Amino acid sequence: MPHRPGKLHLNAFLMTIGHHESAWRYPESNLTGTWDVAHYQHLARVAERAKFDSIFFGDGPALQGDIRYRPVGRLDPTALLPALAVVTERIGLVATASTTYNEPYNLARRFATIDHISGGRAGWNIVTTAGSDAAQNFGLDEVPEHRHRYERAAEFVDVCLQLWDSWEDDFLIGDREKGRFADGDKIHRIDHEGRFFRVRGPLNVPRTPQGHPLLVQAGSSEDGREFAAQYAEAVFTAQQTLAEGQAFYADLKRRIAAFGRKPGLVKILPGIVPVLGGTEEEARRRESELAELQVPAYGLKQLSGLIGAELTEADLDRPLPPVGDVTAVRGMQSRFALVTDLARRENLTVRQLLSRLGGGRGHRTFTGTPEQVAETIEEWFTQGAADGFNVMPPLLPSGLEAFAEHVVPILQRRGLFRTEYEGTTLRDHYGLPRPENRFAARRAAGGQVAAAAPAR
Amino acid sequence: MPHRPGKLHLNAFLMTIGHHESAWRYPESNLTGTWDVAHYQHLARVAERAKFDSIFFGDGPALQGDIRYRPVGRLDPTALLPALAVVTERIGLVATASTTYNEPYNLARRFATIDHISGGRAGWNIVTTAGSDAAQNFGLDEVPEHRHRYERAAEFVDVCLQLWDSWEDDFLIGDREKGRFADGDKIHRIDHEGRFFRVRGPLNVPRTPQGHPLLVQAGSSEDGREFAAQYAEAVFTAQQTLAEGQAFYADLKRRIAAFGRKPGLVKILPGIVPVLGGTEEEARRRESELAELQVPAYGLKQLSGLIGAELTEADLDRPLPPVGDVTAVRGMQSRFALVTDLARRENLTVRQLLSRLGGGRGHRTFTGTPEQVAETIEEWFTQGAADGFNVMPPLLPSGLEAFAEHVVPILQRRGLFRTEYEGTTLRDHYGLPRPENRFAARRAAGGQVAAAAPAR
Repeated sequence: MPHRPGKLHLNAFLMTIGHHESAWRYPESNLTGTWDVAHYQHLARVAERAKFDSIFFGDGPALQGDIRYRPVGRLDPTALLPALAVVTERIGLVATASTTYNEPYNLARRFATIDHISGGRAGWNIVTTAGSDAAQNFGLDEVPEHRHRYERAAEFVDVCLQLWDSWEDDFLIGDREKGRFADGDKIHRIDHEGRFFRVRGPLNVPRTPQGHPLLVQAGSSEDGREFAAQYAEAVFTAQQTLAEGQAFYADLKRRIAAFGRKPGLVKILPGIVPVLGGTEEEARRRESELAELQVPAYGLKQLSGLIGAELTEADLDRPLPPVGDVTAVRGMQSRFALVTDLARRENLTVRQLLSRLGGGRGHRTFTGTPEQVAETIEEWFTQGAADGFNVMPPLLPSGLEAFAEHVVPILQRRGLFRTEYEGTTLRDHYGLPRPENRFAARRAAGGQVAAAAPAR
Repeated sequence: MPHRPGKLHLNAFLMTIGHHESAWRYPESNLTGTWDVAHYQHLARVAERAKFDSIFFGDGPALQGDIRYRPVGRLDPTALLPALAVVTERIGLVATASTTYNEPYNLARRFATIDHISGGRAGWNIVTTAGSDAAQNFGLDEVPEHRHRYERAAEFVDVCLQLWDSWEDDFLIGDREKGRFADGDKIHRIDHEGRFFRVRGPLNVPRTPQGHPLLVQAGSSEDGREFAAQYAEAVFTAQQTLAEGQAFYADLKRRIAAFGRKPGLVKILPGIVPVLGGTEEEARRRESELAELQVPAYGLKQLSGLIGAELTEADLDRPLPPVGDVTAVRGMQSRFALVTDLARRENLTVRQLLSRLGGGRGHRTFTGTPEQVAETIEEWFTQGAADGFNVMPPLLPSGLEAFAEHVVPILQRRGLFRTEYEGTTLRDHYGLPRPENRFAARRAAGGQVAAAAPAR
């Protein structure tokens, strides 16, 4: 499927002081940067100067990863984004939040607030949260099973979409003389009653500059793809090879069409870990150096969590032991498949596998000169594997600064990437329209719409 | 009980574009200010220039109040505070959040994040949320009963306190050479199992600059007072007369002592609505003008909600009809008592009562010249009715600007209020110590402390 070259999209995935496990061991690292708003403000400004579409934070409500060997834990990204919104002007701001451990009214409202504060730059990466450590912070023994989580997620998003539309855009009357502030007929209860949620509405925040925050999704399992095809406007994914990227891209665009949506209105962004050097040799040296600084005990624990099998005693210099079947995985099914396929395909020892996962936990590492990295980006973009990329610098801030300084200008010179923002909202950057308000649409179609205020 | 005069505390209670129902009807009002971060940034800066201890936002997860007659609804204050934190330097930042409609892990983490982002200036006003409109946004038909809500609140706060201590302050090793980032023995599971919550921990955010956010409480019912006496570090309250203020103050300080806490370490701040004028006559005129601009339909609905009885058809020019007994009130018991006492004591017609409630919903209105208002503040402060005040300007920003410009300097000249911040955290401003970490204390006492990391 040939891809019509146009503008590609770049999202900066910001994680602690770098995506690579070894980032903190470099002398340049800010050991407490993970919890320092100034660190993230700097990163947001660097990404904005380079005209990135957006910055993005992953999240999970648990201390995941072994802090003895690496800075883990994170600030609540929904509280961090507002602090970044007011020191930036154009860049989009995407935070992850879980549909399994939140209530839709609270989360719809929080993201609406961020969209208001940022003037229309908010995005929500919708996750269902794998892992028993999160479950056990919310009264459960084990994470709910995969299908159940996705069913709840679908209803959760349905409720949010209704709440975000519960105020029509033109609710304001503002007649000081007559004492009429708002048109009560344009603010609506939603009276949702579903399997998981009963929510009356309306939201207590007006419709936002973007209509609603951009909906992002990042799970690539069967359930995840169906969910993305139905709801997502941008998709983050982990793909190791161009062929896998193309297959995923084609599959997801097909599913999107099957839901009656325009495939072009959903942007697919594989993750890449750029390891840059002035020469290819220097870049390779940097890659090896990062691998050598990994602590195997950390990687084995992460790998155990990733594929749901106990591997902390595994022999580092032998192949990955048998680890069961994807259908039994309660957690991250697509990541399980990616990792076991990678190990099998390239016949990697456990140590080699840990090294491959140390930077991007399954995302593709692009190692080379800025020219080479730009080349690969262009290849994936023009060959139908990506609408853009989720850039995951191994070290932060230096890896993002280097990408902004050396790779972005090449992409701009090749006409692949913007040199100026054209719009003001995140939807503008991704080339997505502001959604219509369902209540206003129903009214325009001559239908009945129930109003909230008079019924109170 | 004579009060030793010292420094009083001032908190600016920021609500939409003013506490008075009529605020929006003034030509100066910003009709969309309620949802505009720039409006709140301006207010935060005004309060900080005047050396207020803190600013504060009320909250409830529902559209409360009839928007046809007044700007209601509000941004999520936990998402608004970070946007204010990064444009201010010293002022404390307090947000309300409900223990009935949140999970402790999420909320403990969000407030910890705000405390990190603000460098130790976060406060949490703990509420249990009255009202069926909120309940119906969370799958319930009716709000849980008063006692039940407070029992849940107590356990909720207990869980948060444990989570906030789950990282000891000196967890960081940061040995780049040996690859040891943190001391796993200093980060703890909490393994809480209670009636309402099971939470494993640890939190995924380090201990915060303040140890934990300042705990604020604002319910003055019997349950509310007991809760405040046990947990609160600052208490907001509504008191109509000096005598009532003194009785509440003495009662709460007694209860605090009964829990083995030092009464001086809990600050009591009654709400005041300052209506200022260059002369007393001008101030009275302003007060009448505000009352004349009230829309009775709005006030009757609010009053109905406040006292849990249907009054929208009440005769405005007759006394308040009989409305039952406080013990049957599921919602705001103390506010019910305050309003019915006020109406009875002063033999008010419904219209007069609405006018008295239009500014502060039961909080005391201080009308007069800046000298007179400062005089009343000093009287309450020195006569054992208050450690400070929760200032609720009828119009925003002008009412806050006027208070800052005209009343604060008088209080400063009289030696009652600071002219400069002495510390950097909200606890510093309120003269409260940073709490000890319970795990570190246990270790210091030679006890066993379970560590989180090795058990993973």
